[in-house]
Amino acid sequence: MTHADPENTIRILLATDNHIGYLERDPVRGQDSINTFKEILQLAVKKEVDFILLAGDLFHENKPSRDCLYQILALLREYTLGDKPIPIELLSDPEEGQAAGFSFPAINYEDPNLNIGIPVFSIHGNHDDPQGPGVNGALCALDVLSVSGLLNYMGKFDLPVSDADASTTGIAVRPVLLRKGTTRLGMYGVGNVKDQRMHFELRSNRVRMYMPKDKDKWFNILLVHQNRVKHGPQEYVPEGMFDDSVDLVVWGHEHDCRIVPEPVAGKNYYITQPGSSVATSLADGESLEKHVALLEIKGKDFQLTPIPLRTVRPFVIEEVVLETVAEEEGLDLNDQMEITKYLKTKVNELIEQAHTLWDERNTRGIEAGEEELPPMLPLVRLKVDTTGVTQTSNPIRFGQEFQGRVANPRDLLVFHRAKKAKRLAKVAIDQPELSIDDPDLTISEKLAKVRVGTLVREYLAAQELQLLGENGMSDAIQMFVEKDDIHAIQAHVAKSLKLLLRNVETNGEIEEEDLDEILAKAKERQDKAYMEKQEARKSSNVKGKAVVDDGDNKSDDSMMDDHFAGAGTNTNFDSDFSMNEPEPPKKKAPARGAATKKAPAKAPAKKAATTARGRGKKAAPPSSDSDVQLVNDDDDEISEEEALKPVKRTNRAAVLSQPAKKAPAKKKAPAKPAQSQLTFAPAGRSSRAAASKAKAKMVVSPYPFYSDLA
Amino acid sequence: MTHADPENTIRILLATDNHIGYLERDPVRGQDSINTFKEILQLAVKKEVDFILLAGDLFHENKPSRDCLYQILALLREYTLGDKPIPIELLSDPEEGQAAGFSFPAINYEDPNLNIGIPVFSIHGNHDDPQGPGVNGALCALDVLSVSGLLNYMGKFDLPVSDADASTTGIAVRPVLLRKGTTRLGMYGVGNVKDQRMHFELRSNRVRMYMPKDKDKWFNILLVHQNRVKHGPQEYVPEGMFDDSVDLVVWGHEHDCRIVPEPVAGKNYYITQPGSSVATSLADGESLEKHVALLEIKGKDFQLTPIPLRTVRPFVIEEVVLETVAEEEGLDLNDQMEITKYLKTKVNELIEQAHTLWDERNTRGIEAGEEELPPMLPLVRLKVDTTGVTQTSNPIRFGQEFQGRVANPRDLLVFHRAKKAKRLAKVAIDQPELSIDDPDLTISEKLAKVRVGTLVREYLAAQELQLLGENGMSDAIQMFVEKDDIHAIQAHVAKSLKLLLRNVETNGEIEEEDLDEILAKAKERQDKAYMEKQEARKSSNVKGKAVVDDGDNKSDDSMMDDHFAGAGTNTNFDSDFSMNEPEPPKKKAPARGAATKKAPAKAPAKKAATTARGRGKKAAPPSSDSDVQLVNDDDDEISEEEALKPVKRTNRAAVLSQPAKKAPAKKKAPAKPAQSQLTFAPAGRSSRAAASKAKAKMVVSPYPFYSDLA
Repeated sequence: MTHADPENTIRILLATDNHIGYLERDPVRGQDSINTFKEILQLAVKKEVDFILLAGDLFHENKPSRDCLYQILALLREYTLGDKPIPIELLSDPEEGQAAGFSFPAINYEDPNLNIGIPVFSIHGNHDDPQGPGVNGALCALDVLSVSGLLNYMGKFDLPVSDADASTTGIAVRPVLLRKGTTRLGMYGVGNVKDQRMHFELRSNRVRMYMPKDKDKWFNILLVHQNRVKHGPQEYVPEGMFDDSVDLVVWGHEHDCRIVPEPVAGKNYYITQPGSSVATSLADGESLEKHVALLEIKGKDFQLTPIPLRTVRPFVIEEVVLETVAEEEGLDLNDQMEITKYLKTKVNELIEQAHTLWDERNTRGIEAGEEELPPMLPLVRLKVDTTGVTQTSNPIRFGQEFQGRVANPRDLLVFHRAKKAKRLAKVAIDQPELSIDDPDLTISEKLAKVRVGTLVREYLAAQELQLLGENGMSDAIQMFVEKDDIHAIQAHVAKSLKLLLRNVETNGEIEEEDLDEILAKAKERQDKAYMEKQEARKSSNVKGKAVVDDGDNKSDDSMMDDHFAGAGTNTNFDSDFSMNEPEPPKKKAPARGAATKKAPAKAPAKKAATTARGRGKKAAPPSSDSDVQLVNDDDDEISEEEALKPVKRTNRAAVLSQPAKKAPAKKKAPAKPAQSQLTFAPAGRSSRAAASKAKAKMVVSPYPFYSDLA
Repeated sequence: MTHADPENTIRILLATDNHIGYLERDPVRGQDSINTFKEILQLAVKKEVDFILLAGDLFHENKPSRDCLYQILALLREYTLGDKPIPIELLSDPEEGQAAGFSFPAINYEDPNLNIGIPVFSIHGNHDDPQGPGVNGALCALDVLSVSGLLNYMGKFDLPVSDADASTTGIAVRPVLLRKGTTRLGMYGVGNVKDQRMHFELRSNRVRMYMPKDKDKWFNILLVHQNRVKHGPQEYVPEGMFDDSVDLVVWGHEHDCRIVPEPVAGKNYYITQPGSSVATSLADGESLEKHVALLEIKGKDFQLTPIPLRTVRPFVIEEVVLETVAEEEGLDLNDQMEITKYLKTKVNELIEQAHTLWDERNTRGIEAGEEELPPMLPLVRLKVDTTGVTQTSNPIRFGQEFQGRVANPRDLLVFHRAKKAKRLAKVAIDQPELSIDDPDLTISEKLAKVRVGTLVREYLAAQELQLLGENGMSDAIQMFVEKDDIHAIQAHVAKSLKLLLRNVETNGEIEEEDLDEILAKAKERQDKAYMEKQEARKSSNVKGKAVVDDGDNKSDDSMMDDHFAGAGTNTNFDSDFSMNEPEPPKKKAPARGAATKKAPAKAPAKKAATTARGRGKKAAPPSSDSDVQLVNDDDDEISEEEALKPVKRTNRAAVLSQPAKKAPAKKKAPAKPAQSQLTFAPAGRSSRAAASKAKAKMVVSPYPFYSDLA
């Protein structure tokens, strides 16, 4: 494809979930995320892509350490600045999303003071989402990179400030519109919001995509960073929920690499999921070989070529069920020494396996002309089902023996027990989902289940707070812990007190002896409101919990890492949003379970016809139109003649029309050409009618380990 | 001066202590620091300076909020990038201080990918000093700005990692060497270290300045950020302690504006102290009108022109002694109502005074062609000596009445009592300096005296920690609190335990019953070492404490804000350094006491001949050569022919030689000219002999409120 027509082919390096700063204080793994991000930037230079596109969670911490920020700024400056001409024209407004009160453009390569070689575009993820509000509204780490001119942050939208706002606002998606030759590309970024919120917005037709009138002549990419795997009724975003004008969905957040585009039943678009560039959990999905993708687009056709990442630490994972081993190999389940010996043999095998894996990958690289890489300590995870074992050894002490041989001695081993099917339902309905008071659990089982949020809620409930609601306080504490927002608790207390004072109905001075009574009344009102909320939630939550807790309770810490915020509870969600949608039929998470560890190329998975449409028709909920699609509002309409012509020719674009052989003279255009007003017609509901448009042709490239398209 | 010879005159905007982020969450004052920094950048553009030079504490918080970082990056990008040609050549190595492992230069205007118009140079202060070590060593907020290409961070030196290092390392000062026409400028930045450390390094001749062989042909600026006002025997840096090759010392850290250069007795250099651009305390010094300076240098001559800052909130401060008022105006000291009424009248007068001040300044600006500024709520501080008053009202409640009329209602009023002279000595010697257990103090007196560090030390002492020394723990907690270093405590505990384990002399396994005894012994050793340290300190500390506590105990929170780390105690200082230097004769802080609030121009203060030399000779301490001067090491010697020629001609410098009329073509030089090796001969001790060199001619410009030199 590219060989034929490079002038009209947009070349993009696609990556996501780089999680810069993951385990940064770990002496062995501390630089893993940085090293691989560096490799990605180097790949972008080598492959001569037009730009880099990231789908969220560039940073692991909401407030990255100074060290991380420093390294990322340095890496971006090193690899993305330079004299390489940028052959893509920006057709949307370069001032859209600009820092308020400043004159420099939002898109860095439009700034005549910066010599950008490879622009980087990114949405935010759930880890690096905006927090605030500060003087400049909610800001995220990407805003800092963006204002320094080293990254183009897209897909930010105003979050509702209050519940009242939330019910009217919705999500507005304004695209970055690009052109290279005859190919026109619209990039629609939707930064992460809580899945329940996204689910609600999609169901309610409140995601407004601002599209050009002739949207069908564009190749339209939608970037999302949400759960794709189901974690509860509204705790994921169904694959079939997006607008038909979209040609390709780039799905961030999910860490397993599924680059080969997958069709969605009943839809015209494909989904590609690059997966993370660093393993942030020792789960099955993370043990798949990690890749970035070279995405080439020409007209309405696209091609995706996975490129393996060579700096990723090798990771092998296996599960043993000791009861089975006892049956098959005669292991004595009462002999702790013998069990330990058996497990050590197992781990040694896994280490060997990891070395082989590394050697294979390294050899492949060398054969493709890359340099040899020094060996790395592998990640090894052995999951042990200890059902039937009376006494287990200490997994941390066990791991110490492998220090210097594996990168993760402390969590090499995890023990768990098969849960009795009977208990499950009871837990889900009657008890807090993850209570650690359960006397039937072993300590390691309890530890594996600890969720800070749950602990906080249980603790707060036990306090019988006199003035502040446990509910809001729990959210505030979670913000404090997860997002490093040191003012969250202070702000919550201030707000609650203000609210409380408003509820205290007195005329003027309060007598000291009346105080207790007044406060008791106010608290009562608060508690009542809270209980009502809880009741409303229960009905919709029960099934969700059952799903979270069902059979698959292998210690999968990816949930802890990434999906914690929403796991099994709705308390964080604005109660205004209806939760009454019936649960769609169960669908097995595509990547889990059957994960064949080393099979990198996967045929596009055929989906059962469980699209949102099919589901919605089963039982129409009262408040929501579940025949879901992205809608666009009806403002900003403009005639087709006005739209898209005359096209703005930036100084960058001018570069293109010259025979750009050497570094172009970087000069401010003597007089800036008049910026043509570019506005968009709404895609509207009528887009369904036009869904018979020619489907984008997709070329699934054979799986080359080293693509030589460049 | 500039009119005559602009091609050979370097124009610098001098500012310091911008304290970005000071009180950023205050609804009234939150943006003060940002607004004034913006004004400074705008002044730099307007005055067409060659660069901006800052002397530390650009940030108030060691870990600035995201909002602050975002705003500073945006402001620097807005005002310091652009097509303005840079007429100053860099003669020192642009890679000196470069980010390790990256190819872009340390000096931003040498980067062909950045279009810098006005470079900004800065050292770090005590607020924004490097903390670490991380993977990249200790980093500070300026490193982040520097790596993003928006600021040139200078004056960073490697701090000793351990006590052993500290005794051999010293401080290496590598200059930034610049040239404009015939004028050659050496800028020697020394970022803040604890005053005691700096004092020690200076006394021990361990501050090594790397100077060009022909240093006398250069105009040499030394940038420091230390206490100039004495806070204890080693808790300041004497003015006369610097090398004679220096022509001008730019002194940061001290907040009062003393721009007009002051000579130093027995030295060839002058000192200029720009002062902070925002009041971070309501002390007398901060009420002086705030300015930046236009520094013009031609050959060995320089001229400093103060430029008033218009966006600074007006601030008036006054003290009343109620006993005197009672005597003179018959105020009834037993009538709380009457006192409150009197104080309200006083505050109203001060508010009026502040309005007049604002109007005067605003009018001056308008007359000079500036735009009118909207009025700002003033800062008002009334210090009340309540000696003889039986019952005082609540200052916070008092302030509430002035909400909306002053910017600081909560700390409008401070109460204090004259201390009995008798008690003083006792407190200083026998008791912890700032113990709040003193039953003779009123609550407000106690609160005014609270220092977190002291509280922590007292609390820790009371715990009788079993394993960890209180001493190190106190430091760690201070790091945690002051520098937002969330890992400080963890790191200290880990280190202490390691040390403790090393002290535990056993062969192999420890029996559980022996544990208590072993630990007790280890702790005993630790305590003993600590007590020895304490004893050694006592002799040198007593006088320091007396100084801190003496007569002048008006609530001066500048000490709290800026000088806390070292105030009245040596516990934070590496004990290796000798503390035995005799206390120099008492010297009244120059800016305090006699501060005439509105007199902006001050004649260069004549100093009594209390130079370091004079002092040192009085009583020679055993371990230190107090005949102090900056010395240079004897490495890196190079012949004079090699040094400084051929000069590197950067693409920037090339700009100069062209008739730079329009924006210069920004293009990477086709082949980079060979970087000429530039090394420096040591100035050595012999510099004393050459001290008879022609003293730099200094022109004290008349004090124009709006200089029209540009």
